[in-house]
Amino acid sequence: MRLAELSEHSGVSTATIKYYLREGLLPPGRQINATTAEYDEEHLRRLRLVRAMIQVGRVPVAKVREVLGHVDDDSLGRSIRLGAALWALPQVPEPDEDDEFVRAAHQEVTTLLDRLGWENAKQLTTISPAYRSLVVAVAAFRRLGYEWGAEQLAPYAELMHRTAVLDLDNLETHPSEAERVEFAILGAILNEPLLRSLHRLAQEEESTRRYGFE
Amino acid sequence: MRLAELSEHSGVSTATIKYYLREGLLPPGRQINATTAEYDEEHLRRLRLVRAMIQVGRVPVAKVREVLGHVDDDSLGRSIRLGAALWALPQVPEPDEDDEFVRAAHQEVTTLLDRLGWENAKQLTTISPAYRSLVVAVAAFRRLGYEWGAEQLAPYAELMHRTAVLDLDNLETHPSEAERVEFAILGAILNEPLLRSLHRLAQEEESTRRYGFE
Repeated sequence: MRLAELSEHSGVSTATIKYYLREGLLPPGRQINATTAEYDEEHLRRLRLVRAMIQVGRVPVAKVREVLGHVDDDSLGRSIRLGAALWALPQVPEPDEDDEFVRAAHQEVTTLLDRLGWENAKQLTTISPAYRSLVVAVAAFRRLGYEWGAEQLAPYAELMHRTAVLDLDNLETHPSEAERVEFAILGAILNEPLLRSLHRLAQEEESTRRYGFE
Repeated sequence: MRLAELSEHSGVSTATIKYYLREGLLPPGRQINATTAEYDEEHLRRLRLVRAMIQVGRVPVAKVREVLGHVDDDSLGRSIRLGAALWALPQVPEPDEDDEFVRAAHQEVTTLLDRLGWENAKQLTTISPAYRSLVVAVAAFRRLGYEWGAEQLAPYAELMHRTAVLDLDNLETHPSEAERVEFAILGAILNEPLLRSLHRLAQEEESTRRYGFE
Protein backbone atom coordinates (compact mmCIF):
# COMPACT_ATOMS: atom_id res chain seq x y z
CA MET A 1 0.00 0.00 0.00
CA ARG A 2 1.01 3.63 -0.52
CA LEU A 3 1.58 6.20 2.23
CA ALA A 4 -1.99 7.54 1.86
CA GLU A 5 -3.44 4.04 2.31
CA LEU A 6 -1.19 3.31 5.28
CA SER A 7 -2.56 6.51 6.81
CA GLU A 8 -6.15 5.53 6.05
CA HIS A 9 -5.79 2.00 7.47
CA SER A 10 -4.02 3.15 10.62
CA GLY A 11 -5.89 6.40 11.27
CA VAL A 12 -2.49 8.10 11.64
CA SER A 13 -1.93 11.26 9.54
CA THR A 14 0.63 11.16 6.71
CA ALA A 15 2.57 13.98 8.43
CA THR A 16 2.89 11.87 11.60
CA ILE A 17 3.89 8.77 9.60
CA LYS A 18 6.60 10.82 7.85
CA TYR A 19 7.83 12.00 11.25
CA TYR A 20 8.01 8.39 12.54
CA LEU A 21 9.93 7.41 9.37
CA ARG A 22 12.42 10.26 9.86
CA GLU A 23 12.87 9.29 13.53
CA GLY A 24 13.51 5.68 12.55
CA LEU A 25 10.49 4.36 14.49
CA LEU A 26 9.09 2.86 11.31
CA PRO A 27 11.29 1.04 8.78
CA PRO A 28 11.39 2.68 5.33
CA GLY A 29 8.98 1.39 2.67
CA ARG A 30 10.14 -0.39 -0.47
CA GLN A 31 11.05 2.39 -2.93
CA ILE A 32 9.11 1.94 -6.21
CA ASN A 33 10.36 5.11 -7.89
CA ALA A 34 11.90 8.42 -6.85
CA THR A 35 8.74 9.71 -5.13
CA THR A 36 6.74 6.61 -4.16
CA ALA A 37 7.30 3.88 -1.56
CA GLU A 38 5.26 0.78 -0.88
CA TYR A 39 4.26 -0.34 2.66
CA ASP A 40 2.96 -3.67 3.92
CA GLU A 41 1.13 -5.28 6.85
CA GLU A 42 4.27 -5.22 8.94
CA HIS A 43 4.45 -1.44 8.63
CA LEU A 44 0.82 -1.21 9.69
CA ARG A 45 1.42 -3.37 12.75
CA ARG A 46 4.53 -1.43 13.74
CA LEU A 47 2.68 1.85 13.27
CA ARG A 48 -0.03 0.69 15.70
CA LEU A 49 2.59 -0.24 18.26
CA VAL A 50 4.41 3.09 17.94
CA ARG A 51 1.17 5.03 18.18
CA ALA A 52 0.05 3.08 21.26
CA MET A 53 3.37 3.74 22.99
CA ILE A 54 3.44 7.45 22.12
CA GLN A 55 -0.24 8.42 22.27
CA VAL A 56 -1.64 6.04 24.88
CA GLY A 57 1.47 5.24 26.93
CA ARG A 58 3.07 8.71 26.62
CA VAL A 59 6.42 7.02 26.07
CA PRO A 60 9.11 9.50 24.86
CA VAL A 61 10.38 8.98 21.29
CA ALA A 62 13.91 8.01 22.43
CA LYS A 63 12.42 5.29 24.70
CA VAL A 64 10.23 4.03 21.85
CA ARG A 65 13.35 3.64 19.73
CA GLU A 66 15.05 1.71 22.54
CA VAL A 67 12.05 -0.60 23.05
CA LEU A 68 11.82 -1.30 19.31
CA GLY A 69 15.52 -2.15 19.28
CA HIS A 70 14.78 -4.98 21.72
CA VAL A 71 11.64 -6.06 19.85
CA ASP A 72 13.68 -6.45 16.65
CA ASP A 73 16.66 -8.18 18.24
CA ASP A 74 15.88 -11.80 17.44
CA SER A 75 19.28 -12.90 18.74
CA LEU A 76 17.70 -12.80 22.22
CA GLY A 77 15.59 -15.50 23.90
CA ARG A 78 11.92 -14.82 24.51
CA SER A 79 12.08 -13.97 28.22
CA ILE A 80 15.01 -11.61 27.75
CA ARG A 81 13.37 -10.00 24.73
CA LEU A 82 10.07 -9.53 26.57
CA GLY A 83 11.87 -8.30 29.65
CA ALA A 84 14.19 -5.92 27.80
CA ALA A 85 11.30 -4.38 25.89
CA LEU A 86 9.10 -3.98 28.99
CA TRP A 87 11.93 -2.79 31.18
CA ALA A 88 12.76 -0.05 28.70
CA LEU A 89 9.31 1.47 29.37
CA PRO A 90 9.28 4.34 31.89
CA GLN A 91 9.68 3.12 35.44
CA VAL A 92 9.25 4.43 38.96
CA PRO A 93 12.22 6.15 40.63
CA GLU A 94 14.70 4.03 42.59
CA PRO A 95 13.75 3.40 46.23
CA ASP A 96 15.81 5.28 48.82
CA GLU A 97 17.74 2.43 50.46
CA ASP A 98 18.53 4.51 53.57
CA ASP A 99 14.82 4.96 54.36
CA GLU A 100 13.60 2.75 57.25
CA PHE A 101 10.27 2.06 55.49
CA VAL A 102 12.06 0.99 52.31
CA ARG A 103 14.21 -1.42 54.31
CA ALA A 104 11.14 -2.89 56.01
CA ALA A 105 9.43 -3.17 52.61
CA HIS A 106 12.41 -5.12 51.16
CA GLN A 107 12.09 -7.52 54.06
CA GLU A 108 8.35 -8.00 53.59
CA VAL A 109 8.59 -8.49 49.83
CA THR A 110 11.36 -11.07 50.30
CA THR A 111 9.17 -12.93 52.80
CA LEU A 112 6.29 -12.69 50.31
CA LEU A 113 8.31 -14.22 47.45
CA ASP A 114 9.41 -17.07 49.75
CA ARG A 115 5.86 -17.72 50.85
CA LEU A 116 4.54 -17.71 47.26
CA GLY A 117 7.36 -19.90 45.99
CA TRP A 118 8.20 -17.41 43.26
CA GLU A 119 11.72 -18.78 42.86
CA ASN A 120 12.36 -17.05 39.54
CA ALA A 121 11.25 -13.63 40.72
CA LYS A 122 13.60 -14.05 43.70
CA GLN A 123 16.51 -14.36 41.30
CA LEU A 124 15.51 -11.15 39.52
CA THR A 125 15.24 -8.83 42.53
CA THR A 126 18.47 -6.96 41.81
CA ILE A 127 17.48 -6.14 38.22
CA SER A 128 13.68 -6.15 38.07
CA PRO A 129 11.87 -2.76 37.92
CA ALA A 130 8.68 -4.55 39.04
CA TYR A 131 10.40 -5.66 42.25
CA ARG A 132 11.67 -2.14 42.88
CA SER A 133 8.30 -0.50 42.28
CA LEU A 134 6.66 -3.05 44.59
CA VAL A 135 9.10 -2.11 47.35
CA VAL A 136 8.33 1.60 46.78
CA ALA A 137 4.56 0.92 46.92
CA VAL A 138 4.78 -1.16 50.11
CA ALA A 139 7.01 1.49 51.71
CA ALA A 140 4.38 4.17 50.88
CA PHE A 141 1.72 2.18 52.78
CA ARG A 142 3.99 1.63 55.76
CA ARG A 143 5.03 5.30 55.88
CA LEU A 144 1.32 6.14 56.32
CA GLY A 145 1.07 3.83 59.30
CA TYR A 146 -0.48 0.77 57.63
CA GLU A 147 1.36 -2.40 58.55
CA TRP A 148 1.17 -3.86 55.08
CA GLY A 149 3.42 -6.82 54.58
CA ALA A 150 3.73 -10.35 53.23
CA GLU A 151 0.56 -11.55 54.93
CA GLN A 152 -1.71 -8.87 53.45
CA LEU A 153 0.00 -8.98 50.06
CA ALA A 154 -0.06 -12.75 49.53
CA PRO A 155 -3.74 -13.08 48.47
CA TYR A 156 -3.36 -10.13 46.07
CA ALA A 157 -0.20 -11.66 44.63
CA GLU A 158 -2.01 -14.96 44.00
CA LEU A 159 -4.72 -13.14 42.04
CA MET A 160 -2.13 -11.17 40.08
CA HIS A 161 -0.38 -14.44 39.24
CA ARG A 162 -3.61 -15.79 37.77
CA THR A 163 -3.92 -12.54 35.83
CA ALA A 164 -0.38 -13.05 34.48
CA VAL A 165 -1.30 -16.60 33.42
CA LEU A 166 -4.20 -15.16 31.39
CA ASP A 167 -1.84 -12.56 29.88
CA LEU A 168 0.62 -15.18 28.71
CA ASP A 169 -2.13 -17.49 27.44
CA ASN A 170 -3.43 -14.58 25.35
CA LEU A 171 0.10 -13.77 24.20
CA GLU A 172 0.57 -17.30 22.92
CA THR A 173 -2.43 -17.05 20.59
CA HIS A 174 -0.33 -14.74 18.39
CA PRO A 175 1.40 -16.70 15.63
CA SER A 176 4.84 -15.07 15.23
CA GLU A 177 7.48 -14.19 17.80
CA ALA A 178 7.55 -10.55 16.62
CA GLU A 179 3.79 -10.28 17.13
CA ARG A 180 4.05 -11.83 20.58
CA VAL A 181 6.67 -9.32 21.69
CA GLU A 182 4.62 -6.46 20.22
CA PHE A 183 1.48 -7.70 21.97
CA ALA A 184 3.35 -7.89 25.26
CA ILE A 185 4.34 -4.23 24.99
CA LEU A 186 0.84 -3.15 23.96
CA GLY A 187 -0.50 -5.17 26.84
CA ALA A 188 1.82 -3.47 29.31
CA ILE A 189 0.53 -0.09 28.10
CA LEU A 190 -3.15 -0.82 27.51
CA ASN A 191 -3.86 -3.48 30.14
CA GLU A 192 -3.13 -1.16 32.98
CA PRO A 193 -6.08 1.21 32.39
CA LEU A 194 -8.22 -1.79 31.49
CA LEU A 195 -7.49 -3.70 34.70
CA ARG A 196 -7.78 -0.55 36.81
CA SER A 197 -11.23 0.15 35.34
CA LEU A 198 -12.38 -3.43 35.81
CA HIS A 199 -11.10 -3.34 39.37
CA ARG A 200 -12.98 -0.13 40.20
CA LEU A 201 -16.15 -1.37 38.54
CA ALA A 202 -15.86 -4.58 40.57
CA GLN A 203 -15.44 -2.48 43.73
CA GLU A 204 -18.65 -0.61 42.90
CA GLU A 205 -20.47 -3.88 42.24
CA GLU A 206 -19.21 -5.48 45.46
CA SER A 207 -19.71 -2.43 47.66
CA THR A 208 -23.31 -1.90 46.48
CA ARG A 209 -23.95 -5.64 46.99
CA ARG A 210 -22.76 -5.32 50.58
CA TYR A 211 -24.11 -1.89 51.53
CA GLY A 212 -26.85 -1.14 48.97
CA PHE A 213 -27.06 1.97 46.82
CA GLU A 214 -27.42 4.46 49.68
CA MET B 1 0.16 17.17 70.71
CA ARG B 2 1.62 20.47 69.52
CA LEU B 3 2.35 21.43 65.92
CA ALA B 4 6.00 20.37 66.25
CA GLU B 5 4.97 16.92 67.52
CA LEU B 6 2.36 16.55 64.79
CA SER B 7 5.14 17.31 62.30
CA GLU B 8 7.46 14.77 63.92
CA HIS B 9 4.86 11.99 64.05
CA SER B 10 3.70 12.53 60.48
CA GLY B 11 7.03 13.35 58.84
CA VAL B 12 5.35 16.42 57.29
CA SER B 13 7.12 19.77 57.80
CA THR B 14 5.45 22.42 60.01
CA ALA B 15 5.39 24.81 57.00
CA THR B 16 3.41 22.25 54.98
CA ILE B 17 1.05 21.56 57.90
CA LYS B 18 0.39 25.32 58.21
CA TYR B 19 -0.33 25.46 54.49
CA TYR B 20 -2.82 22.58 54.79
CA LEU B 21 -4.47 24.35 57.74
CA ARG B 22 -4.78 27.61 55.75
CA GLU B 23 -6.25 25.70 52.79
CA GLY B 24 -8.80 24.03 55.05
CA LEU B 25 -7.49 20.53 54.30
CA LEU B 26 -6.84 19.95 57.99
CA PRO B 27 -9.30 21.09 60.69
CA PRO B 28 -7.90 23.69 63.11
CA GLY B 29 -6.41 22.44 66.39
CA ARG B 30 -7.93 23.21 69.78
CA GLN B 31 -6.62 26.65 70.71
CA ILE B 32 -4.92 26.51 74.14
CA ASN B 33 -3.71 30.10 74.21
CA ALA B 34 -3.08 32.90 71.69
CA THR B 35 -0.10 31.18 70.08
CA THR B 36 -0.54 27.47 70.76
CA ALA B 37 -2.99 24.89 69.44
CA GLU B 38 -3.37 21.24 70.40
CA TYR B 39 -3.75 18.45 67.81
CA ASP B 40 -4.91 14.84 68.23
CA GLU B 41 -4.87 11.42 66.55
CA GLU B 42 -7.61 12.49 64.16
CA HIS B 43 -5.41 15.32 62.87
CA LEU B 44 -2.58 12.85 62.37
CA ARG B 45 -4.80 10.48 60.40
CA ARG B 46 -6.21 13.27 58.27
CA LEU B 47 -2.71 14.58 57.61
CA ARG B 48 -1.64 11.17 56.32
CA LEU B 49 -4.62 11.05 54.00
CA VAL B 50 -4.00 14.55 52.64
CA ARG B 51 -0.34 13.82 52.11
CA ALA B 52 -1.09 10.54 50.31
CA MET B 53 -3.53 12.30 47.99
CA ILE B 54 -1.21 15.22 47.23
CA GLN B 55 2.23 13.59 47.25
CA VAL B 56 1.51 10.05 46.07
CA GLY B 57 -1.72 10.54 44.12
CA ARG B 58 -0.82 13.99 42.72
CA VAL B 59 -4.39 15.10 43.41
CA PRO B 60 -4.82 18.90 43.07
CA VAL B 61 -5.61 20.80 46.31
CA ALA B 62 -9.13 21.80 45.15
CA LYS B 63 -9.94 18.11 44.47
CA VAL B 64 -8.56 17.10 47.86
CA ARG B 65 -10.95 19.59 49.46
CA GLU B 66 -13.86 18.13 47.47
CA VAL B 67 -12.96 14.53 48.41
CA LEU B 68 -12.66 15.47 52.11
CA GLY B 69 -16.08 17.13 51.92
CA HIS B 70 -17.56 13.75 50.98
CA VAL B 71 -15.49 11.90 53.60
CA ASP B 72 -16.86 14.17 56.32
CA ASP B 73 -20.48 14.15 55.15
CA ASP B 74 -21.96 11.53 57.47
CA SER B 75 -25.47 12.30 56.24
CA LEU B 76 -24.66 9.99 53.31
CA GLY B 77 -24.89 6.19 53.22
CA ARG B 78 -21.68 4.19 52.97
CA SER B 79 -21.85 3.31 49.25
CA ILE B 80 -22.64 6.89 48.26
CA ARG B 81 -19.94 8.24 50.54
CA LEU B 82 -17.34 5.80 49.22
CA GLY B 83 -18.46 6.47 45.66
CA ALA B 84 -18.56 10.26 46.01
CA ALA B 85 -15.09 10.34 47.54
CA LEU B 86 -13.59 8.00 44.93
CA TRP B 87 -15.39 9.62 42.02
CA ALA B 88 -14.03 13.01 42.99
CA LEU B 89 -10.49 11.72 42.30
CA PRO B 90 -9.10 12.62 38.86
CA GLN B 91 -10.69 10.57 36.09
CA VAL B 92 -10.08 9.77 32.44
CA PRO B 93 -11.62 12.07 29.81
CA GLU B 94 -15.13 11.31 28.53
CA PRO B 95 -15.30 8.80 25.67
CA ASP B 96 -16.17 10.26 22.26
CA GLU B 97 -19.62 8.78 21.68
CA ASP B 98 -19.46 9.40 17.91
CA ASP B 99 -16.41 7.16 17.56
CA GLU B 100 -17.20 3.74 16.09
CA PHE B 101 -14.74 1.97 18.42
CA VAL B 102 -16.31 3.61 21.47
CA ARG B 103 -19.76 2.44 20.33
CA ALA B 104 -18.48 -1.11 19.85
CA ALA B 105 -16.81 -0.94 23.28
CA HIS B 106 -20.10 0.12 24.96
CA GLN B 107 -21.73 -2.91 23.37
CA GLU B 108 -19.01 -5.29 24.55
CA VAL B 109 -18.95 -3.94 28.10
CA THR B 110 -22.76 -4.22 28.32
CA THR B 111 -22.51 -7.86 27.17
CA LEU B 112 -19.75 -8.39 29.73
CA LEU B 113 -21.83 -7.05 32.63
CA ASP B 114 -24.77 -9.29 31.58
CA ARG B 115 -22.50 -12.29 31.36
CA LEU B 116 -20.96 -11.63 34.79
CA GLY B 117 -24.32 -10.91 36.40
CA TRP B 118 -23.06 -7.57 37.73
CA GLU B 119 -26.59 -6.20 38.12
CA ASN B 120 -25.57 -3.28 40.31
CA ALA B 121 -22.80 -2.10 38.01
CA LYS B 122 -25.33 -2.20 35.15
CA GLN B 123 -27.45 0.34 37.00
CA LEU B 124 -24.47 2.66 37.43
CA THR B 125 -23.31 2.84 33.79
CA THR B 126 -24.59 6.37 33.21
CA ILE B 127 -22.80 7.81 36.24
CA SER B 128 -19.80 5.57 36.96
CA PRO B 129 -16.32 6.87 35.98
CA ALA B 130 -15.06 3.26 36.17
CA TYR B 131 -17.55 2.22 33.49
CA ARG B 132 -16.52 5.14 31.28
CA SER B 133 -12.81 4.47 31.66
CA LEU B 134 -13.37 0.79 30.86
CA VAL B 135 -15.13 1.78 27.63
CA VAL B 136 -12.21 4.07 26.74
CA ALA B 137 -9.68 1.29 27.45
CA VAL B 138 -11.58 -1.32 25.40
CA ALA B 139 -11.98 1.18 22.54
CA ALA B 140 -8.18 1.77 22.58
CA PHE B 141 -7.54 -1.97 22.09
CA ARG B 142 -10.11 -2.20 19.28
CA ARG B 143 -8.73 0.87 17.51
CA LEU B 144 -5.39 -0.95 17.32
CA GLY B 145 -7.03 -3.91 15.59
CA TYR B 146 -7.39 -6.25 18.60
CA GLU B 147 -10.89 -7.69 18.80
CA TRP B 148 -11.10 -7.37 22.57
CA GLY B 149 -14.59 -7.85 23.90
CA ALA B 150 -16.75 -9.51 26.53
CA GLU B 151 -15.24 -12.95 25.95
CA GLN B 152 -11.62 -11.88 26.52
CA LEU B 153 -12.55 -9.53 29.36
CA ALA B 154 -14.69 -11.93 31.41
CA PRO B 155 -11.84 -13.93 33.04
CA TYR B 156 -10.01 -10.70 33.92
CA ALA B 157 -13.20 -9.25 35.39
CA GLU B 158 -13.68 -12.34 37.57
CA LEU B 159 -10.18 -11.92 38.99
CA MET B 160 -10.74 -8.21 39.58
CA HIS B 161 -13.94 -9.06 41.41
CA ARG B 162 -12.00 -11.33 43.76
CA THR B 163 -9.53 -8.49 44.21
CA ALA B 164 -12.41 -6.15 45.12
CA VAL B 165 -13.68 -8.69 47.66
CA LEU B 166 -10.24 -8.62 49.32
CA ASP B 167 -10.29 -4.80 49.26
CA LEU B 168 -13.64 -4.63 51.05
CA ASP B 169 -12.70 -7.36 53.52
CA ASN B 170 -9.62 -5.28 54.40
CA LEU B 171 -11.73 -2.13 54.60
CA GLU B 172 -14.05 -3.75 57.12
CA THR B 173 -11.21 -4.43 59.54
CA HIS B 174 -11.14 -0.66 60.28
CA PRO B 175 -13.28 0.17 63.30
CA SER B 176 -14.91 3.51 62.49
CA GLU B 177 -16.84 4.65 59.43
CA ALA B 178 -14.54 7.67 58.97
CA GLU B 179 -11.49 5.38 58.97
CA ARG B 180 -13.13 3.05 56.45
CA VAL B 181 -13.83 5.90 54.04
CA GLU B 182 -10.28 7.21 54.49
CA PHE B 183 -8.81 3.76 53.90
CA ALA B 184 -10.89 3.41 50.74
CA ILE B 185 -9.40 6.61 49.33
CA LEU B 186 -5.86 5.66 50.33
CA GLY B 187 -6.45 2.27 48.75
CA ALA B 188 -7.60 3.84 45.51
CA ILE B 189 -4.39 5.87 45.39
CA LEU B 190 -1.84 3.40 46.78
CA ASN B 191 -3.27 0.08 45.58
CA GLU B 192 -2.86 0.94 41.96
CA PRO B 193 0.96 1.04 41.95
CA LEU B 194 0.96 -1.94 44.32
CA LEU B 195 -1.22 -4.14 42.11
CA ARG B 196 0.59 -3.03 38.96
CA SER B 197 3.92 -4.01 40.50
CA LEU B 198 2.61 -7.37 41.73
CA HIS B 199 1.13 -7.98 38.29
CA ARG B 200 4.41 -7.25 36.51
CA LEU B 201 6.39 -9.32 38.97
CA ALA B 202 3.93 -12.19 38.42
CA GLN B 203 4.39 -11.80 34.66
CA GLU B 204 8.16 -12.10 35.10
CA GLU B 205 7.72 -15.18 37.30
CA GLU B 206 5.30 -16.84 34.88
CA SER B 207 7.19 -15.95 31.72
CA THR B 208 10.50 -17.26 33.08
CA ARG B 209 8.69 -20.42 34.25
CA ARG B 210 7.42 -20.97 30.72
CA TYR B 211 10.39 -19.82 28.66
CA GLY B 212 13.36 -19.91 31.04
CA PHE B 213 15.71 -17.03 31.74
CA GLU B 214 17.07 -16.72 28.18
